[in-house]
Amino acid sequence: MNAEIICIGTELVIGDVLNTSSQYIARKLAQRGLNVFYHTMVGDNPGRMQQIFETAVSRSNLIFITGGLGPTQDDITVQTVCDFFQLPLVENTESLENIKAYFSRLGRELTDNNLKQALVPQGATVFQNALGTAPGCAVEHDGKTVILLPGPPKEMQDMFDRSVEPFLEKYTDGIIRSHFVKIYGIGEAQVDAIMADLESGANPSVAPYAKDGEMYLRVTAK
Amino acid sequence: MNAEIICIGTELVIGDVLNTSSQYIARKLAQRGLNVFYHTMVGDNPGRMQQIFETAVSRSNLIFITGGLGPTQDDITVQTVCDFFQLPLVENTESLENIKAYFSRLGRELTDNNLKQALVPQGATVFQNALGTAPGCAVEHDGKTVILLPGPPKEMQDMFDRSVEPFLEKYTDGIIRSHFVKIYGIGEAQVDAIMADLESGANPSVAPYAKDGEMYLRVTAK
Repeated sequence: MNAEIICIGTELVIGDVLNTSSQYIARKLAQRGLNVFYHTMVGDNPGRMQQIFETAVSRSNLIFITGGLGPTQDDITVQTVCDFFQLPLVENTESLENIKAYFSRLGRELTDNNLKQALVPQGATVFQNALGTAPGCAVEHDGKTVILLPGPPKEMQDMFDRSVEPFLEKYTDGIIRSHFVKIYGIGEAQVDAIMADLESGANPSVAPYAKDGEMYLRVTAK
Repeated sequence: MNAEIICIGTELVIGDVLNTSSQYIARKLAQRGLNVFYHTMVGDNPGRMQQIFETAVSRSNLIFITGGLGPTQDDITVQTVCDFFQLPLVENTESLENIKAYFSRLGRELTDNNLKQALVPQGATVFQNALGTAPGCAVEHDGKTVILLPGPPKEMQDMFDRSVEPFLEKYTDGIIRSHFVKIYGIGEAQVDAIMADLESGANPSVAPYAKDGEMYLRVTAK
């Protein structure tokens, strides 16, 4: 199962804000023994977002997207995913209640834009947002799984720990531990020669990650 | 002139190390009024690197690549760029002296691998590395400019400030100041309506960056 991570946000692309979400998700996936090969950042632009998403779907099975779930017309993430899989948007009752409660707590007036955040792709597994209004969700379609998460790191991390981790269990059934071993001083070919018997095994599985001047072996046991 | 940033490094992709170089470069380009639309991270893998590079060349004029310049066989960046533009590698005398001096200072023995770092694409503008061994360079070919920088952030930043900034002057001729203005509370359409006269002007140039719930205007004066 190959995963990739897309972070949407103009503030990230222009360097105004440091992208920490990409690393947060990558670490979590590495712990589960899931491969991550690509990370992309793109601004809040529907055309570029669509192009990045189509590339991701063509090469990965599990795609994480953070950001672009806001209440305005620029909430391009949900629309891009719905268009691609030809899924209608449906209202999620729990998200709607969450949004109403959120605004009620703040004493602020709800607009139609805010209510739009309760719309999710039909059939999606919805992840409620404990710290904000935009729900996340997982869309499983045509052998691909797309996980949409809010952009603000606190909301994303809370949702990841609370809801995405349990959701991912089925992709990492029975994983007990995954660990990286750093190797210096000998090349990938030598490591392969020495580790060949372990690399062909299934439990623990041993995956080499070549790096310049050193390498990692990810050892995952069930 | 559209720029994009590629950061090569398995340690980045698996979340072992936070990518700060992408933001560093993005900010510098924003100050110069250069557009950055995409950031990508990919591991030290020749096939994936080649695919990412070809995509970048197809959509951007100015491509920054950090990492993959190390001394081992995994130094995929220079090779990828040379293969793409069909450029031979040539030895850069100043880089060779720099590498020899570096090892002499450390009292360590030079290997053929280390000497390989003095090889750069023919015709490239070479940027010497004041803090390490791998030189950076700029390859200008077929209307594209590719700037190769070392992966370690300290080396990259020092080289950027010392050599890349002066090199970029010709792409940002006479820019005095570029600044982002954040706008909240009104949408892109309203901002466009209000700012139309300024957005059609050349000095200052005003470029809108739509964002979810807010937007940026980049104002650049010559």
